[in-house]
Amino acid sequence: MNRRMVVYRIGQLLLLESVLMIIPLAVSAGYGEWNGVLSFAVAIGTALFFGIIPLIFFRPENDVMYAKEGYTIVTFAWILLSLVGAMPFFLSREIPSYIDAVFETVSGLTTTGASLLTDVEKMSRGMLFWRSFTHWIGGMGILVLMMAIIPTDSGRSMHIMRAEMAGPVVGKLVPKIKDTAKILYIIYLAITALETIFLLIGGMPLYDSVVHALGTAGTGGFGIKGDSIGGYNAYLQWVIAIFMVIFGINFNLYYMILLKRFSSFVKNTELWLFFAMIIVSTTAIAINIFPIYNDVGDSIRHSFFQVTSLMSTTGYSTADFNLWPPLSKGILFVLMFVGGCAGSTAGGLKISRILIMAKSVYNDLRKQYHPRSVTKVKIDGKPLDDTTINRVGTYFIIYMMLNVTVFLLICFEPFGFETNLTAAVTCVNNVGPGLGAVGPAGNYDNYSDFSTIVLSIAMLLGRLEIFPVILALNPNNWSNKNK
Amino acid sequence: MNRRMVVYRIGQLLLLESVLMIIPLAVSAGYGEWNGVLSFAVAIGTALFFGIIPLIFFRPENDVMYAKEGYTIVTFAWILLSLVGAMPFFLSREIPSYIDAVFETVSGLTTTGASLLTDVEKMSRGMLFWRSFTHWIGGMGILVLMMAIIPTDSGRSMHIMRAEMAGPVVGKLVPKIKDTAKILYIIYLAITALETIFLLIGGMPLYDSVVHALGTAGTGGFGIKGDSIGGYNAYLQWVIAIFMVIFGINFNLYYMILLKRFSSFVKNTELWLFFAMIIVSTTAIAINIFPIYNDVGDSIRHSFFQVTSLMSTTGYSTADFNLWPPLSKGILFVLMFVGGCAGSTAGGLKISRILIMAKSVYNDLRKQYHPRSVTKVKIDGKPLDDTTINRVGTYFIIYMMLNVTVFLLICFEPFGFETNLTAAVTCVNNVGPGLGAVGPAGNYDNYSDFSTIVLSIAMLLGRLEIFPVILALNPNNWSNKNK
Repeated sequence: MNRRMVVYRIGQLLLLESVLMIIPLAVSAGYGEWNGVLSFAVAIGTALFFGIIPLIFFRPENDVMYAKEGYTIVTFAWILLSLVGAMPFFLSREIPSYIDAVFETVSGLTTTGASLLTDVEKMSRGMLFWRSFTHWIGGMGILVLMMAIIPTDSGRSMHIMRAEMAGPVVGKLVPKIKDTAKILYIIYLAITALETIFLLIGGMPLYDSVVHALGTAGTGGFGIKGDSIGGYNAYLQWVIAIFMVIFGINFNLYYMILLKRFSSFVKNTELWLFFAMIIVSTTAIAINIFPIYNDVGDSIRHSFFQVTSLMSTTGYSTADFNLWPPLSKGILFVLMFVGGCAGSTAGGLKISRILIMAKSVYNDLRKQYHPRSVTKVKIDGKPLDDTTINRVGTYFIIYMMLNVTVFLLICFEPFGFETNLTAAVTCVNNVGPGLGAVGPAGNYDNYSDFSTIVLSIAMLLGRLEIFPVILALNPNNWSNKNK
Repeated sequence: MNRRMVVYRIGQLLLLESVLMIIPLAVSAGYGEWNGVLSFAVAIGTALFFGIIPLIFFRPENDVMYAKEGYTIVTFAWILLSLVGAMPFFLSREIPSYIDAVFETVSGLTTTGASLLTDVEKMSRGMLFWRSFTHWIGGMGILVLMMAIIPTDSGRSMHIMRAEMAGPVVGKLVPKIKDTAKILYIIYLAITALETIFLLIGGMPLYDSVVHALGTAGTGGFGIKGDSIGGYNAYLQWVIAIFMVIFGINFNLYYMILLKRFSSFVKNTELWLFFAMIIVSTTAIAINIFPIYNDVGDSIRHSFFQVTSLMSTTGYSTADFNLWPPLSKGILFVLMFVGGCAGSTAGGLKISRILIMAKSVYNDLRKQYHPRSVTKVKIDGKPLDDTTINRVGTYFIIYMMLNVTVFLLICFEPFGFETNLTAAVTCVNNVGPGLGAVGPAGNYDNYSDFSTIVLSIAMLLGRLEIFPVILALNPNNWSNKNK
């Protein structure tokens, strides 16, 4: 392995983080929160210090980079990013435990939105901004951002992008990785700005609008109010719900629209399945909760908001769905696993994986029926190669194992079955709220340090889709035999 | 499709069922339960009537039989078997609703052991015997029994055996199917008799011993007491627990012992993984429940009993594990999915499938690490072919879809999340008791007719491992184009 390259890239990344933290520092300064300013300054100093050393001492001799280097960089970058990103929360004493601060930061970067804050409204403006900003950074991926802005791109960075971006197939939009990364970030920034404007029009204050747009864009879900989005007017709730859908869609499709290739939008099976699942779930839940709200409009709005929130794995809420009837809770629980489209900022299993699995099951049944028939699994009219199909199956297996393992590890807690199971699922899938004590009205405060660490690791594994982390932490990865 | 053959075989099967029902009729007569005798007599008459018609009018022109005929016979045989087997319960008015009677019969035949009886001790002796006897019939498979005893075996019946027996690979022990089926049933009968003797030695009354041996053998779990096995002494509980392990092991291994091929016993990875999972789970739960029982022996006995009961998917209980701490409940919940070894009478996913999946994930990770390496997944030293591995993956996907679908369909019930989720899982995996309202101390009585039907179908799909049923019910299966 090209170790110098790995260390060098991680150094660059820490420098990028130090630059990004200037923004929340400015917010703190703007609101006169000097305790916050100081905390950010110290964190920035730390990131600068540990970021500069590799740049001086670990300049790589060559730019050789394979899949190995890709997942090693991504895994360690995300761990360091979280450890450094947690510093402001801890230094300002707004989150007095460093383990808790790391949980909150991992939850932010992985766009989970699971919080252990008992009273979010007591936090300072600067910290709440940083908390939501981590969603935005982690949503599209900080290494993708690095590729977009740092000049030395050798074309080898594809391996980093593959490891950081979610979904079964990660492709380039344009021949150059650097340009692909740039295009993705420009679209990301533009839609985030658009949401901010729509929220401002609806009368939401500027600070609130920016913070919620950042949280929606990353499909994160950290809010700034005790009742999440529940206290805002119906227009604002609709705006956020619709943008949760928008950020749950594959970004490649937005690029296709820019290129006026509308047909790829129309022909995208994943997209239509995403819409179909939203419509069916919204309708079923709206009917199911109608007796609670006694109003068609309210029922549809609350249903649509919660469905899009959990499917896009954002985690905002306008109602305490933990108090809804069993059918609604059941549907929402299943949606936590589903997630959004591949190539979006959403977490979960991803609809394209479910689509590929469903088609491969159908294909296998066909083969059992007509043993001599040869049919290929096709998505959007194009046949998929066997490696991709098998990898989706493998991913599903390891993903279910992860859900089960995390669930068992947090069962040491005295919470009920519903709380522990949904806490595990919601963290692995980067959703945020679960049911029971970790429902929209609850939080993760009562979990022990052990479980907090387990859930932090679960969120990271979920965000990076497991494989890169396992491969990076494999001891063979570090032996000299594999160069 | 050779339709005449399908109808003819199903007819034979109904005749076999009518013969088997003579045993509970005799039990009823022995206890002077004339209402029961009459009910069995009517059911036997019905089975005879519908069994003889095909034998006269549908004599097949040839004995052509492919996979299609195999799964069609198995699927419809099991449905008819359940509908006819439910008649005695319904006719005797001991289960006043026919839908409920079918649920109880399906639960018996699929060796689930989920019951909607609110007071099992009020039932007549004959009915309780029939209820447990269905476990024994369904455990090894009634079509396997038919193959063992009906003379006209053309060697084509392998397709029936494959469709009825559980596990990823179904093979023949000896060249002739008929002999394989005979050997399996002789072993099955011998171990059942052995358990009865061990129970008699411990002072259990004859009737109770036979009924419990039948329930253990099929890994069913229907008991005759309100507290299942809780009221029997510790020796009897240990005997049943150990026999639950024995019936959770691949029967092929017992045949190997008879042939003195001990090495295949020693080299069987699935077996050792089964033992390892039992030991680890028992230890963890025993420590976890120690504060409840304050006695090492009691904690180990209750833990071992519940672990073997849920892993073998039997469902007997000596304690209300619904009241145990979260960790114990969590482990037991996960074990419900696992199941026993392939080729046993246990349900669930089967350990060999988990083993194959784990190895294929490991293999895939290796391939991502060393892209040019070519390694095969091996079980017990033998390489598995790709079709088997892919089919295990496909099965896992469709199995998880089944769990999710059943859960959502029964969410119309006003029960909590824990109850509905575990009810679905425990029925699909043919375990029996779940958590919450369907825990060991509860029952399925409060579920609506709709959910009762859904759960009955879930049990059948789980027992027949989904594929045969889907293929049999596929409309193409019945078109003339496919002969």
